[in-house]
Formats: sequence, C-alpha cells, structure tokens
Amino acid sequence: MQRIADIRNASALMQWDQETYMPPKGATLRGQQISTLSELSHTLFIEEELGSILNDLSGKNDLDITQKRNVARTLEDYQKNKKYTSAFVRALSDQVNKAFHAWIESRKQNAFSIFQPELDKLIALKKQEVQLLGFEKHPYDALLDEFEKGCTVELLDKTFSGIIPVLKTLLGKIAASPQVDDSFLQQAFPKEKQWEWGMHLVKQLNFDFEAGRQDISEHPFSTSLNSKDVRITTRIDENDFANMTWSCIHETGHALYEQGLLSENYGLPLGEACSYSIHESQSRLWENNVGRSLVFWRHYFSGLQQFFPEQFKNVTVDQFYKGINKVQPSFIRTEADEITYHFHVYIRYELEKKLIDGSLTTGDIPAYWNEQYKQLMDITVPDDKNGCLQDVHWSHGSFGYFPTYSLGSFYAAQFFHQAEKEIPLLQSGLEKGDSSLLLKWLREKIHSKGRFYTSEELCKAVTGTGLEINSFTSYLLDKYSSIYTL
Amino acid sequence: MQRIADIRNASALMQWDQETYMPPKGATLRGQQISTLSELSHTLFIEEELGSILNDLSGKNDLDITQKRNVARTLEDYQKNKKYTSAFVRALSDQVNKAFHAWIESRKQNAFSIFQPELDKLIALKKQEVQLLGFEKHPYDALLDEFEKGCTVELLDKTFSGIIPVLKTLLGKIAASPQVDDSFLQQAFPKEKQWEWGMHLVKQLNFDFEAGRQDISEHPFSTSLNSKDVRITTRIDENDFANMTWSCIHETGHALYEQGLLSENYGLPLGEACSYSIHESQSRLWENNVGRSLVFWRHYFSGLQQFFPEQFKNVTVDQFYKGINKVQPSFIRTEADEITYHFHVYIRYELEKKLIDGSLTTGDIPAYWNEQYKQLMDITVPDDKNGCLQDVHWSHGSFGYFPTYSLGSFYAAQFFHQAEKEIPLLQSGLEKGDSSLLLKWLREKIHSKGRFYTSEELCKAVTGTGLEINSFTSYLLDKYSSIYTL
Repeated sequence: MQRIADIRNASALMQWDQETYMPPKGATLRGQQISTLSELSHTLFIEEELGSILNDLSGKNDLDITQKRNVARTLEDYQKNKKYTSAFVRALSDQVNKAFHAWIESRKQNAFSIFQPELDKLIALKKQEVQLLGFEKHPYDALLDEFEKGCTVELLDKTFSGIIPVLKTLLGKIAASPQVDDSFLQQAFPKEKQWEWGMHLVKQLNFDFEAGRQDISEHPFSTSLNSKDVRITTRIDENDFANMTWSCIHETGHALYEQGLLSENYGLPLGEACSYSIHESQSRLWENNVGRSLVFWRHYFSGLQQFFPEQFKNVTVDQFYKGINKVQPSFIRTEADEITYHFHVYIRYELEKKLIDGSLTTGDIPAYWNEQYKQLMDITVPDDKNGCLQDVHWSHGSFGYFPTYSLGSFYAAQFFHQAEKEIPLLQSGLEKGDSSLLLKWLREKIHSKGRFYTSEELCKAVTGTGLEINSFTSYLLDKYSSIYTL
Repeated sequence: MQRIADIRNASALMQWDQETYMPPKGATLRGQQISTLSELSHTLFIEEELGSILNDLSGKNDLDITQKRNVARTLEDYQKNKKYTSAFVRALSDQVNKAFHAWIESRKQNAFSIFQPELDKLIALKKQEVQLLGFEKHPYDALLDEFEKGCTVELLDKTFSGIIPVLKTLLGKIAASPQVDDSFLQQAFPKEKQWEWGMHLVKQLNFDFEAGRQDISEHPFSTSLNSKDVRITTRIDENDFANMTWSCIHETGHALYEQGLLSENYGLPLGEACSYSIHESQSRLWENNVGRSLVFWRHYFSGLQQFFPEQFKNVTVDQFYKGINKVQPSFIRTEADEITYHFHVYIRYELEKKLIDGSLTTGDIPAYWNEQYKQLMDITVPDDKNGCLQDVHWSHGSFGYFPTYSLGSFYAAQFFHQAEKEIPLLQSGLEKGDSSLLLKWLREKIHSKGRFYTSEELCKAVTGTGLEINSFTSYLLDKYSSIYTL
C-alpha cells in the first residue's frame, strides 16, 4: 500500500508542478505522464495477490480495531478498483487531459462550444463508469459514491429541498434590509503586501511550514503528498484583496487536516482523510466559522491595518466584519457569500444529475445554467466564463464532487457548534488570535482518525448525531440577523 | 518505452523538487518514493514480453537506420537491466538515500567519519553490482561502462598518463610567471542583481524558457524531464560572483543539449543524450571555450558593467579576461581553473579504482585524498569539507562518473576546434554576442543525434577522429601563453 501511495504522491507532485512551476511546453507530455502513473497505481492495486492477502486478513481475529479498519477499508477500495479495467483508467485519464486543455482554451476564448465536444466524450466515459460500478436507484449515485461513500440522489434531494427554501427566505429578508458597505474592499492592494499578509495569516493559523509550503497558481488549491509535505496555493489580484485572504484561510483549513493525519498510517486508509465532505468541512470551518467571525477579526484587524494602513484607515472592525459578510447574488461560486454559495452548488448538482441520467445533453448546459441563475438568484449571466465555464471540476471528470461543498458547510457548522460546547475558552482564545485549542480539538476528534469512520459515523462520534442542517441554518440566522438587523 | 520514460520523468521531478522547493519534513518519505519509482521502471523494463519484442525487431530487415539504432540500443539497455534484480535496484536506491542524508550530516559536522559507515555499505553494493554486471580486466570497468559505454581503466590510465604531465609542466611555468590580478572578483555582489544577471546570461545563450526554468538550489545542477521541460539551478553567494556566473553558463550548456534532443524520440535511445562525457562536453564547451574566452567578454563585459557599475568601474575587458582565467591550485573541484580541474578529477579516479578493487578502504580516504592534493598541487587540505566530503557523487552511488568530467573537457576542445573550422563567422558572431551559429552547429552535429552514435563514433563523425588530447592541450597552451606571456 505504501508503494501505491508513493506513486500517487509522485502524481500529486506532477499535478502541483503543472499548476505552479512547469514551463509552458512541459504541458505536452505532462498529461501522458500523469496517466501512466494513474494506470500503474491502479494495476498494482488490483493484483490478485493483494486481494488474497486482504481476504486472509479480513478473517483474522487477532487484529486490533485500527488494523481491522485498515483491512476493511482497503478491501472495499480493492473491490471498487477491481471494477475498473486498466484500459478504462488510462482512457479516462487521457480524456481528462484533453478535456482540461479544451477547457483552458474555451475559457481563453470565452466559448463553451470549444469545451463541449471533449466534455461530451468525458461524460460518455463517466456513463461507462456508472455501468462498471453499478447503482441501485439513480445512475448518479454511482459517481456520488466516489466522493462521498453512501451518498445518494435521494439523500441529497432531501437535504437540498430542506435548505434551499430557508436560504431563499433569508436572502429575501436581507435584500429588503438596509445594505452593508463593503466599498473599502474595492481598492487596490499591492500584490507583494498581499502575499506577505497571506503568509502571515497562514502561519498564525498554525500551518506547519516545515511540512508544507504556499505558492502562487491561477486557481487556489491544496494538495498533499503526505502529512509531512502538504502544499497550498493562492492567487493574488491587486483589486481583489478578499479573494486572496479567504482563499488562504480556506486552503489552510484543508492543509491543517492533511498535516494532522498520522504519518504512521502512510499508505493506509487510516492515514487518509475521511471523505471529500469532511475535508471541505475543515476548509469551510476555518474560512467561515472562524475566518469570517467577529471575534477572529477583533484580533487580526489591527494587524491588517498595519499591512494596509491607507486602505483601512477609516474602517472600524465592525464595519470590516459587516463588509466581509455582505450577501449578494453573484456569478462566481468561489467568491459567493455563505448563503448564495449553496445556490451555486445546487445548480451544478441538478445539472450533473440530468447529464448523467441523460435528461440533458452537453448542448443544453449554457441555457440551463443561465436560466437557473436567473430563477434562483435573479441575475443574468453575461457570458460563459462567468457562467458554465467557471469551474475546473468537469474538465477533471469530477462529477459528483460539487455536493460535497454544501455538505462540507453543513458539517462545519455542526462541528463548530460542538467545539464551542466542548471548549469553554474557544471564543476568548480566538479573540486573542489563538486558534490552537480549536486545532487541537479538531486534530483529536477528526484529523487523527483518518478513514476510521465514514462521514456519517464521524459526525455521530463527534457531535452525537448524523448530518443535520439545523446547526447551519441557526448559524446563518444568528449571524445575518445581527449584521442586517433582521 | 514511453511509459518507462514517464516514470523516470516523475522521479526526476521528485529529485528536482527535493533540491528546490520540498519542505524539510518532506525528506522523510521522498527517498522511499524515489526508490519505488526506480524499482517500478526497472520492473517494467525487464518484462519478458519487451525482450521478445526487441529480439523480434532486431531480426527485421525493413527498419530504417534510426529505427534499427533505436532497437539495438534498447536491446543493449534491456540486456544490461536484466542483470539486475528488482531487489538489488531497490536496495541500492534505499542505500543511496541513506548515504545521501549521512553525507549532508557529515558536511554539517565537517567529519568524514559520519559518512563512512553508509559509504561502506554503498561500496559493498557497488561491488555486488560489479559482480552482477561482469567485467574483463578491471572490476571498475563494469562501473565506468554505466556512465561511458566502452570506457575502461586501460583507456583512462593511458589518457591521464598523457595529460597529467603536460598539465604539471604548464602549471609550473605559470607559477613561475607574473601572476594575474583577480581582486575585482573578491567583492560583494548583491544577490538580487546576481540573479538578474544570471537570468540575462542564460536567456542570451538561447536557453528556451518556454521549455525550461532556472531556480536556486544549494548545489547547481541540471535535470531534464524531457526536451520540453529542462531545468537548471544555480547558487548565489554574495561574495562569489564567479561561481554563480560560470555555473549558469555550465548548466545552460547541459540544458541546451537536452532541449536540442528530438521530442519525437521521447522514451527512445535516440531521444536521449549520447553519454555522460558528451553531456559534459556541452557544458564545458559553453562554460570554458565560449564563456571564458576573450571574444565572448568583448561583447558581454559592458553589459556586466551596467549590472555592477561600482564593482567593475576600473576594470578593462582585458583585465577581466585575465582575472577570470587565473590559474591557481585550490581545494574545490567545481571552482577550479581549466588546468588544475583535471588534477581534482584524476585524484578521484585513482581513489575510486582502488576502492573498487579493494586496495583501499573507506577508512583510508581522507589520508589518501589529502596526500594526493599535497603531491599534485602542493596544497594542504584543511578539513574534510574542503577535501573528501566536497562532492555529492559518492553519496549517489555514482562511482565511475568523475572521469567523464575530464573526457568532457577533451571532447569540448575537439568539438570547438572543429566548429571554428566549419563556421567562418563563429568568432565574429561571439564577439557580437551571437552564439546562435554555434548552437545551430551543435544541434545539427550532436544534439539531434541522441544516442545514434557512441561517444567515440560521434567524435569521429563530427571531427573526423576519435578522442585525442591534442586539441585540449593546444587550446590551453594558446590561451595561457597569452594570458601569462609564457
């Protein structure tokens, strides 16, 4: 299993390099190289010998509980991998490479039509994947399961139908209230200063720079080669201070999780993150529950003012807090506020479902997309770049990924609520700029567990109940009632 | 073959990253990861199926000459790889990792004794390798052959016994002449300016930054993932302007070779550099025959003065030229002048021979080393860091590598001499800062050939004769006679 992890690490490094330091012409072969590594790690994983070792181990009674879980999870992964042929793994990886380059080009030319033929081929492969994997009720379930074990259309439909109306009502109330001022964010912030500020913030949040690094890339991301080498990136736009700041905190949230996995479990399920939604719960928790809270900025705002004295000289911490939490329908998911964010996710979820069950085709995407944005947020998408071309996910073949973004926010609210109950000094610590108690709690309750639990089991173990949306809706109501005096 | 190249590329990237951007704790697993990739590419290479395909192809008559060479070279490689077991490949890679870390530590503490036990184990493995590979006359021949096909102790003894006395005589004459002044090099040169100057130089020499990059590392090196992604590094010391400048030119020489390999041959022998000595011929040719010549600096010196106006305000181009060619026995190989350089190489060659045939043991290294430096250059090595701990090569298990450094210089002189004959405008081009005619010639005669020829065959094809030392000695005599008015 460590050898397989070694190969995956090499692949992760190649992908990180592709987004950070690779010279342009290096792209010619990079896709092929990544495909080769994918195929290889798959080939090693489906060796019959590994299967029989795992089956033997499953029958043993003298394993301790963590060993048992490692065996059980590995066997599940093995059985899942067995469903794929090496040829399919390679074909998918090659098509992802083509689709990714088509997506880049289509964004340059701001035309979905350039991306469409490659996306079509990719969706055909994903439908083939659905057949390889099998499903009970909805074909999309097979794909959801890859990102979130046990997650289904039935479950998500129920969750979204619970939350979307609540968010709509809240958005309506906010729209009818006096608006907050965030004009101080619409200024120029020198790039170098932004970089220093971002690095400062990441350090303060206890990212271990001995076991990781931050770089610049076009789209912020985090990647982990292993818990001792976790890398995040950010993007700096002189006119978008907010984007840089909260992307730094968001990616740090992901990275703190990875750095908190136990290195003795390298290569084994207990050395891996629980799931995509739990991963996202960590990034969203730090980005929003911590990083957009008033107590957090009560500590950090004076430091921020020192970095940008001109820009913030006439701003109070309360004004700042309100400004950074301004709610407003917008086109770009990654820049959305905590309420409208979930409309973005919901639209993608519905669209993916329909693409996979065949009720929509790729040709329908732009029209469907724009219509949904109009309907849910009453905004008119001006072009594909601000619309259906904004996310990299489909070009990666990641269908079934988006819902984990919303689940992540819901889990984040549940975990943070629980942390507040269990750590009496949590808020006063944050107010002093000390988030170490929270990190310690997350490390103990979540990070160190790896894949011992499923998302649902972990949520029960940590909070006493499975996923529920009440923590999230109360959190929003509390927060926005005070900001907008609803 | 492309899949194997893909894996080797991943490994090259991991090694590049290790020296440039990897966070410190990433080192824990990096060695293991590189070992896994080495083992994998070896396993793929020795598959029986590949062997029978190659044997089939070898018997075919309808292949063109390049196809035939590709098949023949691959079959040679295959047969060589077959001599190794996967377990040996892994054991060697693991021991290299241990030895490398021990070497780092021993340099920190300036004590060879820390490195010695790991070096001992590594040499034991290299002796095992000699047995696996077999040899006719001297066990060291087996290792030499890895870096330089067909190279033997017999050949090298003959070559060194021809050149060393000539160099000794020349060194004696120089020592008895009035010395040149290089005091203007012993000044502080701001690091940032040095970086800009180095980048400027690399660009001017036609390094393709779309297909490569330059970074900072502790020891300068060049690595190629493929001809579209070639990376070099340099080191910047405020008090050592010369080291940075000529390391930039040297590594650019290596990189121009790699960027000149034909990408249609990716994964095949004709897409690989001919040999280590021919590789070194390219770096030494640019570093010395071009980069330490008077015509070159007639163009570049005024630009250099603009970068460092204070440091060079009272220096003429003739003074500069003499200063950068000052001959003086010294401790560190990579900083040596063009004459004493080969004493450094010769000492290492003799030592390696003796370590492999068992006439010396690792315990004898420091004393032998220091005694040889005294004998050949009349200098007293002050400590291990300035002595037997200076090179990374042994910690990489690269026994048999050093001689290619001298061969590279000899080939460089032969090639450059030939280029001067064939390119009438070569010198006048260089004087105008235009090295493109030379590069074009090297691309056509050497780079684009890949491994079509062996070193000796290539030398014959390019210059009409095999390796000879006369071009090199005449070059030195001409150059230093004028600098030192001998």
